[in-house]
Amino acid sequence: MGESVVAVTTQIFLIRHGESEWNSSRRYTGQRDVPLSDLGKEQAQRLAERLKDAGLAAVYTSPLRRARETAQAIGQLARVPVILEPGLKEIHHGLWEGLTAEQVSAQFPAEYALWRTQPHRVTMPQGESLAEVAARAEATWRRVVAEQRGSKIAVCSHDAVMRVLLLIALGLALEHFWKWGFGNASLTVIEARGDAANDFRLVCLNDTAHLAGVYSEYARQAL
Amino acid sequence: MGESVVAVTTQIFLIRHGESEWNSSRRYTGQRDVPLSDLGKEQAQRLAERLKDAGLAAVYTSPLRRARETAQAIGQLARVPVILEPGLKEIHHGLWEGLTAEQVSAQFPAEYALWRTQPHRVTMPQGESLAEVAARAEATWRRVVAEQRGSKIAVCSHDAVMRVLLLIALGLALEHFWKWGFGNASLTVIEARGDAANDFRLVCLNDTAHLAGVYSEYARQAL
Repeated sequence: MGESVVAVTTQIFLIRHGESEWNSSRRYTGQRDVPLSDLGKEQAQRLAERLKDAGLAAVYTSPLRRARETAQAIGQLARVPVILEPGLKEIHHGLWEGLTAEQVSAQFPAEYALWRTQPHRVTMPQGESLAEVAARAEATWRRVVAEQRGSKIAVCSHDAVMRVLLLIALGLALEHFWKWGFGNASLTVIEARGDAANDFRLVCLNDTAHLAGVYSEYARQAL
Repeated sequence: MGESVVAVTTQIFLIRHGESEWNSSRRYTGQRDVPLSDLGKEQAQRLAERLKDAGLAAVYTSPLRRARETAQAIGQLARVPVILEPGLKEIHHGLWEGLTAEQVSAQFPAEYALWRTQPHRVTMPQGESLAEVAARAEATWRRVVAEQRGSKIAVCSHDAVMRVLLLIALGLALEHFWKWGFGNASLTVIEARGDAANDFRLVCLNDTAHLAGVYSEYARQAL
């Protein structure tokens, strides 16, 4: 409160994709290109209905199918462009992709334990580290935010990338990776006011009011 | 995801009081004991309806009227005790109490500018610093969380105290005070699982799904 000038507000609606077919079987997906489940499609439609009159200028999305399908549902109802951004792809989980947490824990016990406790110190076997994800996601973020200053846009991505993006936007270190998480088709809003176009504040996190009746039990537990 | 043991979950519903009569006139309230406005009473009732079957064990609240009235609405519908905790009182804003931001900015320009940019370095004239608020709020928090391990409880408090409590729960420094904020009668959920009963994660922030139609314009702008 208390800003007496008319502020230019830049508002980002961070959106996690709807439930995928691997979310429902609780497997690490990473960069495998798994489509939305039927529940996920319904979740994307609900979110699109909620956002259709929100005044979005564009939807930026990871090109992976589960994100792209979610973004397209939103873009179609809001009648705005959907722009593919490879920097928003999920973390490459390497050899963990396709495995459940139980299987990863059995096959990669040391890496898995470190991932749960000090995620910023792990490089996925044959995959990425959080620092690598942060570098590509932050480059995309800064370019998009600079292009869209004063606008309201949606950014559709994945759990690990969104955890990292929120840390970057708030100026926090990667070691805080586990401090929050994102449900399927959830809405998180961050915004910058006035000249401080990179000084973002968290307006709401993990809002799923639009999903009443179309949660999965997985999504509830995954947070 | 991926925890294979049955976890003991401790869940805290952080609640900001409904709109007070001074919120609607945009004055610093601090420890002045201002009641809920009619809108604020309606907001509290909506929140109470939402939480009545949530399985709350108790409602802990700041003894200030605007918080206590909100907590009592919740406790009454959920049929659980309402416990007054002086450590949850709003920051003492000292000589700023009763003034608008414009008046504070005119009368205390240096302190006001510092408050907006480095809030952890300000002591309110004849009032408190954030470190003082953190000390009393954290003591209350640790005692309540220890008593209620494995339960689901509501904690009803004020914007500045909730900003500080969330920083404490997530292990972040007071300099991040402005990174988030809380609307009137909003719901923020944090939880700890398993043995790490003090390792809280943010489940959602500033959820106001229950307030459709009973927002104030002030509340929208204040975030």
